[in-house]
Formats: sequence, structure tokens, C-alpha cells
Amino acid sequence: MCGEMGQPVRYKAVVAYDGTDFAGWQRQPGFRTVQETFETALSRLSRSGQSVTAHASGRTDAGVHARGQTVHFDLFRGMTGTQLRRALNGWLPEDVRVVDAAAVSSDFHARHSAAGKEYRYFVYNAAVMDPLFRRTMLHMPRELNMEAMREAASLLTGKHDFAAFSANPSREIESTVRTVYSIEIAGEAPFLEFRVTGDGFLYKMVRSISGILLSVGIGKERPGAVREIMLSGVRTARVETAPARGLVLWRVWYERADVKDAVSCE
Amino acid sequence: MCGEMGQPVRYKAVVAYDGTDFAGWQRQPGFRTVQETFETALSRLSRSGQSVTAHASGRTDAGVHARGQTVHFDLFRGMTGTQLRRALNGWLPEDVRVVDAAAVSSDFHARHSAAGKEYRYFVYNAAVMDPLFRRTMLHMPRELNMEAMREAASLLTGKHDFAAFSANPSREIESTVRTVYSIEIAGEAPFLEFRVTGDGFLYKMVRSISGILLSVGIGKERPGAVREIMLSGVRTARVETAPARGLVLWRVWYERADVKDAVSCE
Repeated sequence: MCGEMGQPVRYKAVVAYDGTDFAGWQRQPGFRTVQETFETALSRLSRSGQSVTAHASGRTDAGVHARGQTVHFDLFRGMTGTQLRRALNGWLPEDVRVVDAAAVSSDFHARHSAAGKEYRYFVYNAAVMDPLFRRTMLHMPRELNMEAMREAASLLTGKHDFAAFSANPSREIESTVRTVYSIEIAGEAPFLEFRVTGDGFLYKMVRSISGILLSVGIGKERPGAVREIMLSGVRTARVETAPARGLVLWRVWYERADVKDAVSCE
Repeated sequence: MCGEMGQPVRYKAVVAYDGTDFAGWQRQPGFRTVQETFETALSRLSRSGQSVTAHASGRTDAGVHARGQTVHFDLFRGMTGTQLRRALNGWLPEDVRVVDAAAVSSDFHARHSAAGKEYRYFVYNAAVMDPLFRRTMLHMPRELNMEAMREAASLLTGKHDFAAFSANPSREIESTVRTVYSIEIAGEAPFLEFRVTGDGFLYKMVRSISGILLSVGIGKERPGAVREIMLSGVRTARVETAPARGLVLWRVWYERADVKDAVSCE
């Protein structure tokens, strides 16, 4: 039977979570993390409860949500995507769900194979916050200049050095240059969202972009300030990190069609 | 100064809450209720911390949310609506918000003066639940026949005896006849909502209507069953009460323009 002998089967899963009660994706002793929660569910499916490592497309910070986090892992067990999805959802707590799962080729890697990502930042723009959205949106009581925000967004789009829009660039071993494909400011008050796509993002980069867009929106910064700050290459207090609760890792996409039609294991 | 001498000022407030962590609107010893939470905030504004009673348009059950619950109360203190709203929101916890407040004539009554109410029931209709909506929507993994649900909804609309769609009709002293003005089935999968308006609702009536609509949607009941059940006048297991978490008291409206332009107290 496939996956039962020497070679494990590699799976890809799209995972959604409410980040409110998690200390982020990555395992940390003493904290409730999505990775640990997910791997605990995976170990229930592995042979004799062996531990299984889940590799994500990237870490998400404490409080950040996901609708399309993508992970890969290997199991010595052949299952269809639907079987795997249902089994995992049976073990996972309600704040983590497997939206989709599939067997993929063994060289698929959730992080290395990623071609791009979309994050969305949600803003509730009204005098009084709606309590039903307080866990998943930032409350912005002040009026926002959409025109100015869109101008700032256009200056952030493209291939740039985003060092000044990262919380701790020194953590990055390689370059701080990234390509932002698009920043769309969508919706209408009270429901606004920033849809940011790119080839990859530095630590806290989307929250920094959201922070500067809001500063421009309330008139604290001119749209052109975005360019000055970017060229300075230095993170300063001018760039505020928007709170984690408004951020959702929306989707991760892959160029290669890695997904196998089905795993034929009977 | 007005409101400071003999006569109190009557105020009307529109209140939103996340019902998840409340045992409903009405005070109950030993439970966290919206009424108690709201009245505690009110007492901070009253003369020498006297207790103040808040009268709601109606009770909401444990777990039921509100966007437009309407309450009235009297204070020996003159404030503008904006002052009152801000002061209360300063004292209230994050899961209760005053959306709007105004001074009204002294014969305004949140329940007796109400001309109608709208409730909305939210359904997340997809194979896998989105964890970000698990507190505020019902997860319905099965496909729903919208046509059949709309037919059932039309049979429920109008002036009828809703005894069979109330959890405990004996609690009602008066008639179980109510007029449902409209039931709109709005949105598209995964986001569906039932928008129900009427002159008033019996205990658990909207959740019973939502329950029977879903039974019809999944094909467990024919649309015509709604009429049979209604005519029987008896609550049976055929009518399921949809879970509280999907229900939001959306708005309450009043025919008389009770709101005073401003309270002139300087």
C-alpha cells in the first residue's frame, strides 16, 4: 500500500485560523501555537503516533489570522485529500480548520515553492466599533482620505527596499528588497480593507504598510512621505505597526500544478 | 440645570453587543448579563452612583447578538447624545458598545413604543467553517435549496398564530399571533442571511423560523410543511431551534419622532 512502506506521501493543506488565542504559527515552549496544535492533530494520523513536522509558507505573528495559510507535511499513509481534511478537522480545535488538502509531488515545499502571497488588512471605519468585529478588524474612528491612501499605496507598489517597513530588518539574513505586486484599497465605510499581494514579505511588513496607509489617511503624513521613508532605509517611529487583529494571510499561490489527482491507495 | 432638580431626563440608546460571553440581556444573579453590565456603566453617570434601570425593547437570549438593541433609562443629568455615548463607551467592556444615544420625551418606552423589529440570522454555507465567523454564524455544510426556502419563507410571512414556532408559548400571557412583515433570504454562499421583520416576536421565534427554513433547505421538510406545522399550533421536534450564535437583533424602529434635537443644559 502506498505510503505504508518506505516512502512517505507528501501532502499540501490550506489552513484557516482565528489567530486571537494563538501566539502565532511557530512552536514556542509554553505557548499555544498553531503549529503545535496542527502537528498534534497530524500525529494522530501518523503511524503509531509519531510526531510529524508541518512546514508553513511562512510564520504568522501572534494574533494574526489566516484564511489561506499553506503547509506541507509527510505521512506514511495514503489518503485522499477529502479523507485527510475530514480526519484533521475531527482532531483540530474550532479555531483551526483545514479548508483543503491534497497529495502533492514529494518536491513540493510550502515556503520554497510559493510564487506569491496575499494578505488583507481589515479596518472598521466608524465612530463606534461593532463588537462583533472587534477580534478581526482594527477600529478607526477618524475619517480617512481614500484618495491620499491610494496615492501612498501606488508609491509602495513595485520592487523596493522595504527595510524601513519591517519591524526588525536585522533578522533577515538576505535582502530586504521585495516586490509588491498590488495594493488595493477596497470596500466602503465602515468596511475597508487593504489587499496586498507580493512575492514575499518581511517581518511585520504588511502591518507596517497598513500603518503608514492609515497615517496618510488621517492626514498625519502626506502620501509622498512613503517614498522618503522608503529611501531612508531606516525604520523609525513614523511607521506604526497596525495591530495584529486586523491582518489575515489570505492566500498563497504556487506556479507549478503540484497537486496529484488522487492517491490510489486501497 | 436641567435634569439636576426634580425631573430626570429620559434617554434612548442603541446598543450593540457580542452575545457570546453573556447569559442574555436580562439580569440573572450569578451570570454575566448585558443588562447588568449596561446598568453598571449607567450608575457611574448617575448622581452619587445611584442604580439606574435600563429598559430594553426586548430580552435577547444567551449567546444572541445585537447591533440595534434599543433601551431607555432616566438620568438626573443633562447630556447631549454624543456626550452620553462617549461616557458610556468609556465604562463599558469591549463586547458592548453604545452606537447612538439621544434625549427623548419622557413618555418614550423602548418596548411599548416599538413599531417593529428586524432580526438577521447568519449562515456560513460551505463544507468547512471559516474559524473567523464561528462565533457569529451557523455552519451549514450541506447544500441549500434556495427556491424551497423562499417558498417556505413566503408561507411564514403575514399575520399568523406562531405558537408552533415558539419554544415555550405558555410563557406568553397574551396572544401568540404576530405579524411577520417580511422574510428575505439574502446573500450567496458561503454567506447567507435570513432577514426577518415583524411587529414583535415570541420567545425563540426567529430561531425557530430559521430552523424550519434550514430543514426545508436541506430537503428534510417540504416548504408546505410550514403551513401544516403552523396550523397545528403545537410545537414539536419537527421545528428545530437554530443555535443562538447566528442571531443578531438588527434594529428596532419607532413611529414617533421622539428624539429631541438637543438637551440645552449648560
